[in-house]
Amino acid sequence: MARDSGCVFCRIIDGTEPAHRVHEDEAVVAFLDQRPLFPGHTLVVPRGHVETLTDLPEESVGPYFTAVRRVTGAVERAMAADGSFVAGNNRVSQSVPHLHMHVVPRRRKDGLRGFFWPRGRYADESEAEQIAERIRAQL
Amino acid sequence: MARDSGCVFCRIIDGTEPAHRVHEDEAVVAFLDQRPLFPGHTLVVPRGHVETLTDLPEESVGPYFTAVRRVTGAVERAMAADGSFVAGNNRVSQSVPHLHMHVVPRRRKDGLRGFFWPRGRYADESEAEQIAERIRAQL
Ligand SMILES: [Zn+2]
Ligand SMILES: [Zn+2]
Repeated sequence: MARDSGCVFCRIIDGTEPAHRVHEDEAVVAFLDQRPLFPGHTLVVPRGHVETLTDLPEESVGPYFTAVRRVTGAVERAMAADGSFVAGNNRVSQSVPHLHMHVVPRRRKDGLRGFFWPRGRYADESEAEQIAERIRAQL
Repeated sequence: MARDSGCVFCRIIDGTEPAHRVHEDEAVVAFLDQRPLFPGHTLVVPRGHVETLTDLPEESVGPYFTAVRRVTGAVERAMAADGSFVAGNNRVSQSVPHLHMHVVPRRRKDGLRGFFWPRGRYADESEAEQIAERIRAQL
């Protein structure tokens, strides 16, 4: 399994860096974020060192997200949450360059908005269709 | 495949509601969000109507996130992005009660912060360990 000794998440995975672990299996290790949005905020990381979601080998996608789904249910139940937020940053805003999905328990009226940022509109249907075509061309 | 005729995403999937589609396969349909954070902001939805990630059947997790990963690469390339944000809201802040992951292209200095919300700290290691134990007990 690829490891990067300069990577704090690789050191957590191999046990040389402390963390409050909540789950591990063949594919992942999950542990508390040290700077939680809310108590119970957990990070799920694949054991192999990859930087982003698109770097994760295709055969690892199912085992990784099966664990993310399982941790999500456990975090919701453990924190008696009303719901959860599951998110990952690829390169931009990514604090540690080892793929990690955040699993954050949410409550109604917890003071956060789901998307917190101003949302725009396409000028017209034609602009939207041109953007869609650019994405289709990359698939 | 379970369908809910009151659900706008089920209607997009079956073609009775218009959308700018970018991808579809046996497991998912992907289309532009009408209120993008940035142009190219795409939603990936499983064909079967399920409300949240924990409701997605285990055998559907791999095919669903394989498509999310593929769409993420396409959105990044199509929009010449520096990175991306991949996120889903379960129940709280969830606008449409049909599971969807947002795939949002990001650029450095695009004015957004990855997490945008005040982050806390556990009072001490003991508090963190108690929280971790609660989550482990639910796994
Ligand atoms: Zn690493
Ligand atoms: Zn639906």
